[in-house]
Amino acid sequence: MEAVQGSVDMLWVMLGAILVFFMHAGFAMVETGFTRSKNTLNILMKNLLTVAIGSVLFFFIGFALMFGTSAFGLIGTDGFALLGREDIGFFVFQAVFAATCATIISGAVAERMHLSAYITMTVVMIAVIYPVVGHWIWGGGWLSQLGFIDFAGSTVVHLTGASAAFIVAWKLGPRIGKYSGKTVNTIPGHNLPLGALGVFILWVGWFGFNGASTLSADPALVPSIIANTLLAASAGIISTAAYTRYRYGRIDASLTMNGALSGLVGITAGCANVSLLGSIIIGLIAGVVMTESVRILDSKIRVDDPVGAISVHGIVGVWGTLALGFFDTNGGILYGGGAEILGIQTVGVLAVIAWTSIAAGLAISAINVFIPLRVTAEEEETGLDFTEHGSQAYSMQDVLRGTGPASDQSFAARLNQLGEDPSIQKL
Amino acid sequence: MEAVQGSVDMLWVMLGAILVFFMHAGFAMVETGFTRSKNTLNILMKNLLTVAIGSVLFFFIGFALMFGTSAFGLIGTDGFALLGREDIGFFVFQAVFAATCATIISGAVAERMHLSAYITMTVVMIAVIYPVVGHWIWGGGWLSQLGFIDFAGSTVVHLTGASAAFIVAWKLGPRIGKYSGKTVNTIPGHNLPLGALGVFILWVGWFGFNGASTLSADPALVPSIIANTLLAASAGIISTAAYTRYRYGRIDASLTMNGALSGLVGITAGCANVSLLGSIIIGLIAGVVMTESVRILDSKIRVDDPVGAISVHGIVGVWGTLALGFFDTNGGILYGGGAEILGIQTVGVLAVIAWTSIAAGLAISAINVFIPLRVTAEEEETGLDFTEHGSQAYSMQDVLRGTGPASDQSFAARLNQLGEDPSIQKL
Amino acid sequence: MEAVQGSVDMLWVMLGAILVFFMHAGFAMVETGFTRSKNTLNILMKNLLTVAIGSVLFFFIGFALMFGTSAFGLIGTDGFALLGREDIGFFVFQAVFAATCATIISGAVAERMHLSAYITMTVVMIAVIYPVVGHWIWGGGWLSQLGFIDFAGSTVVHLTGASAAFIVAWKLGPRIGKYSGKTVNTIPGHNLPLGALGVFILWVGWFGFNGASTLSADPALVPSIIANTLLAASAGIISTAAYTRYRYGRIDASLTMNGALSGLVGITAGCANVSLLGSIIIGLIAGVVMTESVRILDSKIRVDDPVGAISVHGIVGVWGTLALGFFDTNGGILYGGGAEILGIQTVGVLAVIAWTSIAAGLAISAINVFIPLRVTAEEEETGLDFTEHGSQAYSMQDVLRGTGPASDQSFAARLNQLGEDPSIQKL
Repeated sequence: MEAVQGSVDMLWVMLGAILVFFMHAGFAMVETGFTRSKNTLNILMKNLLTVAIGSVLFFFIGFALMFGTSAFGLIGTDGFALLGREDIGFFVFQAVFAATCATIISGAVAERMHLSAYITMTVVMIAVIYPVVGHWIWGGGWLSQLGFIDFAGSTVVHLTGASAAFIVAWKLGPRIGKYSGKTVNTIPGHNLPLGALGVFILWVGWFGFNGASTLSADPALVPSIIANTLLAASAGIISTAAYTRYRYGRIDASLTMNGALSGLVGITAGCANVSLLGSIIIGLIAGVVMTESVRILDSKIRVDDPVGAISVHGIVGVWGTLALGFFDTNGGILYGGGAEILGIQTVGVLAVIAWTSIAAGLAISAINVFIPLRVTAEEEETGLDFTEHGSQAYSMQDVLRGTGPASDQSFAARLNQLGEDPSIQKL
Repeated sequence: MEAVQGSVDMLWVMLGAILVFFMHAGFAMVETGFTRSKNTLNILMKNLLTVAIGSVLFFFIGFALMFGTSAFGLIGTDGFALLGREDIGFFVFQAVFAATCATIISGAVAERMHLSAYITMTVVMIAVIYPVVGHWIWGGGWLSQLGFIDFAGSTVVHLTGASAAFIVAWKLGPRIGKYSGKTVNTIPGHNLPLGALGVFILWVGWFGFNGASTLSADPALVPSIIANTLLAASAGIISTAAYTRYRYGRIDASLTMNGALSGLVGITAGCANVSLLGSIIIGLIAGVVMTESVRILDSKIRVDDPVGAISVHGIVGVWGTLALGFFDTNGGILYGGGAEILGIQTVGVLAVIAWTSIAAGLAISAINVFIPLRVTAEEEETGLDFTEHGSQAYSMQDVLRGTGPASDQSFAARLNQLGEDPSIQKL
Repeated sequence: MEAVQGSVDMLWVMLGAILVFFMHAGFAMVETGFTRSKNTLNILMKNLLTVAIGSVLFFFIGFALMFGTSAFGLIGTDGFALLGREDIGFFVFQAVFAATCATIISGAVAERMHLSAYITMTVVMIAVIYPVVGHWIWGGGWLSQLGFIDFAGSTVVHLTGASAAFIVAWKLGPRIGKYSGKTVNTIPGHNLPLGALGVFILWVGWFGFNGASTLSADPALVPSIIANTLLAASAGIISTAAYTRYRYGRIDASLTMNGALSGLVGITAGCANVSLLGSIIIGLIAGVVMTESVRILDSKIRVDDPVGAISVHGIVGVWGTLALGFFDTNGGILYGGGAEILGIQTVGVLAVIAWTSIAAGLAISAINVFIPLRVTAEEEETGLDFTEHGSQAYSMQDVLRGTGPASDQSFAARLNQLGEDPSIQKL
């Protein structure tokens, strides 16, 4: 019977891993949709390469540093390339998490960072920065010994990724045209339907992210985690829609999409520890926190984050982690507990921000010695698809030429005068 | 051992809930693809808000009215905010169903309905109209006592959503330009690849919609439901392709996509009660029924339904429910039974249409007192993305400018003369 | 307890079937993205109809020929329409595999093949060609008796599909404009973000393709298969990116996407038989093999394959199958075994190529007697969406008109002078 239960637990964790993997499709679509068409292939390559390099590197190095025998509660020391380990299912689940953390950076640095510099930074994230945080909190390290709670990774995954994203985006500087004197310009994303699809896919994947962090098919705990995840994301949408309507006079579409993600990041730490009502409140607050954070970062701090990753994953990651101090049904302040949980959560958040910022700062400065972090102004204006990949994401001239009956014939006729079929490229 | 079986059943229902949730991505893509680009953000917001409001409202109110202690077989009376209930997994599964029912409306009323009026109608659907039907059929109410069969919701979910959609779309009137005198115009969807992707996603989700309605991982029943779902949808595609080829001289792409959905709606009621061959026949008929329904609704009844939701979910929902009278292997007419099942199914269908139409009609009339249902003609021509959200779904000018080598340089050159980078928006 | 284990195994296989079904969405998006916009509806219809016809035909005929009582190890002989069979779950899983094999052709013959000829070829594939191969290797036929190893179908599914694709694409000839004298032109895909999404979806589905080929929820084997699948695809991405960077001076986006698929095809045969390190090496080699194969096929052999299907599924399918001769941890050359496995694998590959090529060649020649395989040059230039379906995939004129604030107003103004709303089509 234990064997059967083992099968069920394995199945649930594998399903979870597949769902978390699917999140990478979601990240790719969100980042593609929220940026310009001339940098689309570049974004897609960054996303694909992050998963690829992340998985392989986590196999060789990251997993060992995160879950190997602890040295002083600071870092794991064995199990490189999974030598001596049998828990391959656990490795797979953790590998797709690691790549998730790294891919958060790609959105924040989009449209201006050199691919090779980005990839080098990804290597550092997966091989060192993330596994250290993971060891502290999930690998038996000092924060877990302290009682820090982060069930599925508001801090481990999201805050870590966003802290590094902040450092790198700040170091890179804003995209050309983002700020002109005192004016803050908006550079709209080129394909928001893909962005919305990405949000839905991320949400789907998050059910595995949170739900399978149980590591077993617990028939009571899993459904309540799934319900919390559904309700918090819903609440994040509702509060962002309502708040942007109140503040800007209209329901802002991009922010509302990010509102869903904010609800999800917010509930990730506490999804196994809060009530259904608690998850709704956490999600409601997450949407407002994110909206204000985006505004402040964009127009006050002036760190250019094309997709809002720093606010969604970082600031809301902090909120979700601290929220346990209030909403944990077993010791939170709102449930009659003292400030103990809140205190420990605060220590954990500060420690992770400190470590990640310093390590990412050192790493990006070291990389900068060998590789220019940023493409040239001319390359940036041309677009990274052409300068880094010699190609482009769309060839939609056919659509303009209007071959079908619904097209505007006079417009099509004018385009036809331009000559040969532009969709055929001569080498 | 019962505990292990409980884990397996929970896992299957949670997987089902995740798949049904994924259907919302499918609805969003179908509705986006089948409508115009100027109303795309608005459609996406409607879909996101429907899931969000639906989940939260079903938690507070809908679930209790649907599954609480029955008052006279008409409505549930307790369990608001899940007070006193332990079956959280069952709640999650039902919550994503409820949102599915409500989102059917968004397609039929697309491109002209005020967002606030739409949202108010969604609230009524989730809080009252749908739970009442659900109670009658799945919550132990009078129709279930009568023996009405609707295993996964051809009537409960699809017919209920479509009946309300018909009332609201009829009340709203057609989009500007749809009818000019005796002429019926086609307003083509702007992005059919996204529509096709949505169809595939809906199909994937439907395996959970039908398959997990068993509420347990029954090793004999589940595979036959999955097989029925696969075969009926396939048959719907084949019959629609063949029928449009015969009737219109070509395989109509949009209708064939809807043919897949029709096969799915058609098999939903009987997926646990009919044979594999029966499911193929039900799907074949569903495709033809839908194609004719779309034609009649569009050109005779003249109710403008941009995505065909009323035909796909409503008319085919009726067919799928009545089909059990013939194809139920345990008592259907084709299996030696009498007309009893067919009679009960007819009663159920008529009761649901009557209740939903009247309730939705009253609701929409009441909403109309406070909120204009429809945007102004000028707003409609401008597009709801700009008037409701101050933004747009695409910024594809870069694609036109042609930065890459494959582009038509003379065309790009002409566009470049227009001045500054149009993808940067000055606030 | 056996009953519970039966539930778990069923659940895993059903999840696998749903994931493999999802791959059809992936194929549709890859093929859409990698071809021109004027042939998009046609590609989507081919994909939808392949799944639909494939599922129904495999139910009536294919499954019996593949898994029925063997006649001389060559072909199955009973179980048509599943008569006398109880294993419906197994049928569903196999049906979605069969459709996968057939759909590989659609990409290679895109943009020029008549829909009716394509569909007839699909019927032959599903009803005869694929089931025969399947019987030989998975249905107890002569190759399985010989000890041929193909755990999840590098040969059964991918090489079979690609061999037929090669024959049909070669018979059809290249697209107009692909070759002009000695010049090889590139015809870029019109929507690579959709292509990248398709790659992610295929990868997600592949976890079910490989993972559920166990047909049971084996708690040790399944995780190692999932890990192998993750690592091999990652390695395929890394090696393709590195190799195109080295060979062409830039990371080629389209090839790198195909690199992911190459890693997946490469590990499919041996996913249950090789180590984690072995899967990484197989994936690394797969990416390079595919890149060179695409170049040779495109510029030397001059068979026009718009999406690279022949290289990805065929040449890499051969590599993946032969790789077992080296990497099988139980008898491979690198693990101290002799050349026996390699020999048997070679026999199997050659037998499948021979059978499929001859049968597909005969079939396509016979079809050609009744139906022209290829559209006329005028139809090809106009695009198959209009000539075969009387419609078009996109109506993006709204996007050009620029209703939103971010648009270039002078450009919009010029378009507006062209007259009425072009997105409304008069019938």
